[in-house]
Amino acid sequence: MVQVQDFRWTQGMQVKQLVESFAPLGFQSTELARAADVIVKMKKDSAKIFLTFTSNMVTSGLRGFFAQLIELGMADVIVTTVGGIEEDIMKATGEKFSIGSFSVDDVELHEKGINRVGNLFINNESYMNFEDWIVPVLDKLYQKQPRWAVSEMLREIGLILNDEHSILYQAAKHNVPIFCPAITDGAFGFHLYLYQQNHKDFVVDVVKDFGNILFTTTHDDKKAVIALGGSISKHHAILCTLLNGGAEYAVYMTTAHKTSGSMSGATTDEAKSWGKVKDASDVATVIGDVTIMFPLAMIKALEQLKEEGLL
Amino acid sequence: MVQVQDFRWTQGMQVKQLVESFAPLGFQSTELARAADVIVKMKKDSAKIFLTFTSNMVTSGLRGFFAQLIELGMADVIVTTVGGIEEDIMKATGEKFSIGSFSVDDVELHEKGINRVGNLFINNESYMNFEDWIVPVLDKLYQKQPRWAVSEMLREIGLILNDEHSILYQAAKHNVPIFCPAITDGAFGFHLYLYQQNHKDFVVDVVKDFGNILFTTTHDDKKAVIALGGSISKHHAILCTLLNGGAEYAVYMTTAHKTSGSMSGATTDEAKSWGKVKDASDVATVIGDVTIMFPLAMIKALEQLKEEGLL
Amino acid sequence: MVQVQDFRWTQGMQVKQLVESFAPLGFQSTELARAADVIVKMKKDSAKIFLTFTSNMVTSGLRGFFAQLIELGMADVIVTTVGGIEEDIMKATGEKFSIGSFSVDDVELHEKGINRVGNLFINNESYMNFEDWIVPVLDKLYQKQPRWAVSEMLREIGLILNDEHSILYQAAKHNVPIFCPAITDGAFGFHLYLYQQNHKDFVVDVVKDFGNILFTTTHDDKKAVIALGGSISKHHAILCTLLNGGAEYAVYMTTAHKTSGSMSGATTDEAKSWGKVKDASDVATVIGDVTIMFPLAMIKALEQLKEEGLL
Amino acid sequence: MVQVQDFRWTQGMQVKQLVESFAPLGFQSTELARAADVIVKMKKDSAKIFLTFTSNMVTSGLRGFFAQLIELGMADVIVTTVGGIEEDIMKATGEKFSIGSFSVDDVELHEKGINRVGNLFINNESYMNFEDWIVPVLDKLYQKQPRWAVSEMLREIGLILNDEHSILYQAAKHNVPIFCPAITDGAFGFHLYLYQQNHKDFVVDVVKDFGNILFTTTHDDKKAVIALGGSISKHHAILCTLLNGGAEYAVYMTTAHKTSGSMSGATTDEAKSWGKVKDASDVATVIGDVTIMFPLAMIKALEQLKEEGLL
Repeated sequence: MVQVQDFRWTQGMQVKQLVESFAPLGFQSTELARAADVIVKMKKDSAKIFLTFTSNMVTSGLRGFFAQLIELGMADVIVTTVGGIEEDIMKATGEKFSIGSFSVDDVELHEKGINRVGNLFINNESYMNFEDWIVPVLDKLYQKQPRWAVSEMLREIGLILNDEHSILYQAAKHNVPIFCPAITDGAFGFHLYLYQQNHKDFVVDVVKDFGNILFTTTHDDKKAVIALGGSISKHHAILCTLLNGGAEYAVYMTTAHKTSGSMSGATTDEAKSWGKVKDASDVATVIGDVTIMFPLAMIKALEQLKEEGLL
Repeated sequence: MVQVQDFRWTQGMQVKQLVESFAPLGFQSTELARAADVIVKMKKDSAKIFLTFTSNMVTSGLRGFFAQLIELGMADVIVTTVGGIEEDIMKATGEKFSIGSFSVDDVELHEKGINRVGNLFINNESYMNFEDWIVPVLDKLYQKQPRWAVSEMLREIGLILNDEHSILYQAAKHNVPIFCPAITDGAFGFHLYLYQQNHKDFVVDVVKDFGNILFTTTHDDKKAVIALGGSISKHHAILCTLLNGGAEYAVYMTTAHKTSGSMSGATTDEAKSWGKVKDASDVATVIGDVTIMFPLAMIKALEQLKEEGLL
Repeated sequence: MVQVQDFRWTQGMQVKQLVESFAPLGFQSTELARAADVIVKMKKDSAKIFLTFTSNMVTSGLRGFFAQLIELGMADVIVTTVGGIEEDIMKATGEKFSIGSFSVDDVELHEKGINRVGNLFINNESYMNFEDWIVPVLDKLYQKQPRWAVSEMLREIGLILNDEHSILYQAAKHNVPIFCPAITDGAFGFHLYLYQQNHKDFVVDVVKDFGNILFTTTHDDKKAVIALGGSISKHHAILCTLLNGGAEYAVYMTTAHKTSGSMSGATTDEAKSWGKVKDASDVATVIGDVTIMFPLAMIKALEQLKEEGLL
Repeated sequence: MVQVQDFRWTQGMQVKQLVESFAPLGFQSTELARAADVIVKMKKDSAKIFLTFTSNMVTSGLRGFFAQLIELGMADVIVTTVGGIEEDIMKATGEKFSIGSFSVDDVELHEKGINRVGNLFINNESYMNFEDWIVPVLDKLYQKQPRWAVSEMLREIGLILNDEHSILYQAAKHNVPIFCPAITDGAFGFHLYLYQQNHKDFVVDVVKDFGNILFTTTHDDKKAVIALGGSISKHHAILCTLLNGGAEYAVYMTTAHKTSGSMSGATTDEAKSWGKVKDASDVATVIGDVTIMFPLAMIKALEQLKEEGLL
């Protein structure tokens, strides 16, 4: 059995060292160190990696990290919510979000035309510029064909973008499909709707896209899920791997707890109920804010993979 | 300013009395009492009520309560996730779920063919029976027309069901539309996909349904949101009321906190940033498990509305 | 196995009925119904009941309920923090607390001389009046003897008070000892310190009081813990029952989760590690705000005990 | 206003760089970066630093880090709970704790004589060895004098220990007082009690120790609180700084939320209500597990202070 070890700081400490120190430290630090190990294992085992995140993480600076991970080959399939798509495009087309505060006068913000996501602020103007950008894109897509599966549409958009930090750009460039099962649940949905008003045969085919995600992998593939936050993005990836026989590896990071029975709070013990994961060393559930937990675990994994020549 | 009052039990205490005692008790009990008041206010003001919930609440016994609320005219628009649709149908067609435990051997459960949702168990068999039931229904729908908006499809299914406790049944009967922006994110999605394989022109039109939810209300209507849990169901209702000028009333109940910037944890202060809600007495955010918080607040509101002849 | 049952409201619903409906509802409602059952079982089994709560619950209106429970014989030993002692005395001597808000300008509050505890407000004046009241009481106690065990001192104070809603009053009247292991951690501690400055032989003997709590029960007694919130009050009761062979019954209610390894979040599974509790039906952990969860579970237990002639 | 910046990993990334990247990342990562800045500010301003933590953090490997921080002059006053005292002594006298799991069979653990604290395990034997060690120490203390203030007693114990990783050892060596307002709430309390049985004049004077903590600082000193977790350790430090005119700097790290009105969840907004802190840049509340959050923020501060020659 591993013994608890006293943590000590040494000057110039690297993230990798810190996360290694976490393993024998206890509580969530131990779980975090295991998460890093599971990520290394899934990569070494050439598992198909499903990376899922919610839109607020794209509002945050994690957006550039997700793009980098796709570039580095650390994600084979992406699942997210439509806000994440919109905001990745906004940022790729020059919009700036700013750091605000959790405690502000929201009535005052509204009067200034500012939208709040936790302690982050988005200007109304960014949504208006998004509208100006997306409408001609929809037109181009429609001229190509009237019926689009979501992931195919997102790939086309990614090819238009030109931003190394963009999730859609890197995904398109590296043939990583992006799935978004609730594509209409945002400003994008509104623009799709307006477009369809004048183009009645314009169809966004979510049913076809279910086939697309199913065929991103097979029963024979090793499969892994890295689910950041809850929501349908997490559920959709689990559903797909389940229908392909279950994932071998799973890392969940969330602030939700299992006690309410929600998907957001469901733990990787559940992953064991899928029947393929038998070993506690292949799953990790880390409770905490993803903006901190995810960089820590992933950087540790990247450093190790790099050192071993696997990146 | 209201003074804190000592709570005392009296024999035979009614739920209504208890929730009245909550107002001057403090912490979340005060918020809960306010939630009940906001529900009464939205009803008296003839607001369009958007009721949203996540699928795990339909797994629970709240499902029958949601159906009853539709019957009582307490919900004008429903938004939920597809798991909630599936499980409402399963229950309506005779499937039974059971009370289990949060702490079980999930590997063992898997071997027994049991799926766990928190402390609730669903047999694999229920999913198989759902498959047997839904496939001929899809066939009937397709024969009517090949292209369906989600809410229109769910209405047709509701009309087939025959269970007073069913959400879909009561919604269809009382012309309450049910929206489900990620219709493919579940077993239902898989069956839609298989069906489309042999019927290429079969389309589920999520874009059209965005128009449908937009037109459930208007800028002139008073609007109210009761959001139970987070997820896209909460977001979709807020988005729709926002595009119609913002809601006048909002009650959020959730176990999530605002500190992670997630939609699940977003508070009704945000509702104020919509610009129509100016008064703290028109919004309430209650932190806690919905299976307890919601019956308490809603029963208090129902009793009061009944007494005043408004139900 | 118990089946999930659809919840339905009926007019005039009593709290007892509602909590009965919770058992087959799922998630925390099921745990809450079990908590009520465990309370009934501990009472029927004549267990010594250790009731623990934190000071913020005495700030709230639960204070009167705790006093009533002592009067009804539902608590044999009380453990709390010193803020709870101070505020019970303040309320007994006429101070009023008020219902405020979680989101306020704290700098402004400070300028008005208002102290905030969550959404509750306490005036500085109440602390000043407490000082005026407690100093002559300390004098009287000192004249009796210079060395006091905490629980003996609190009993003397309880005998002076004259308020049916007071915890200290009811406890003194019904010979229920109140333990407060960190008696100096509050305004009370400051006054004890000032008093000792002029009376050097004045001693508050916390070590003796450890013996007092140990001898409130025996290895042969059946023992039960109802721990509301975390903190040393919870820990102290568990420690005492542990040193007496472990509790047979335990109900924990808290908003904390086990994932941080804190005492506040420790579950009743831990109670099983004490070695006496073998059966899941004798322990319950309810996650949620105590101002709501506790009245619900306790009222259900009280109604049932009353009906069965046991109250 | 600071703009959100895309996070990117670079090989060999140091902890300091990572935390710098957190400031423009969003959500809790932004708060964490601010916490690091507030720590630097309090040190540069020569504030008296009150460092508080709960006993489970001493169970974890943070214990060695706390000792190192005392050595580095980053803590002027320590406040903790008695479990932390006991376990620091156990570790200093050779006991080993081990990394276990949050999900185990607690009945089985009990049979093996293992005590669980979250995912950490402590053997019964360690408690027995503690008993063997502490009893003669109490004897030596008593021979010196029969009446002890807690912090003075803990200082004597620290002087006996010989372990660079020990909190008590480093505190004694560097004249940093350790306060423990509920000294009897643990195994230590039991041994104090047994000792007093045969030495009736043996007194642990908690009232005197209240004076001791009051005089660790003055109204004129700049004061800072770093509160890890909640409990009376947090409250006691705040109380002391409040009685000395309020703290200028405050960093709180906790998994608790403000919505229940508990001390554990109280935020640093409250610190503003003390009347001295006026500026948001002087306080930070970080929500998350301390085993991860605290090393991150503190290492960033240490690296910066070291570079600037202030450590």
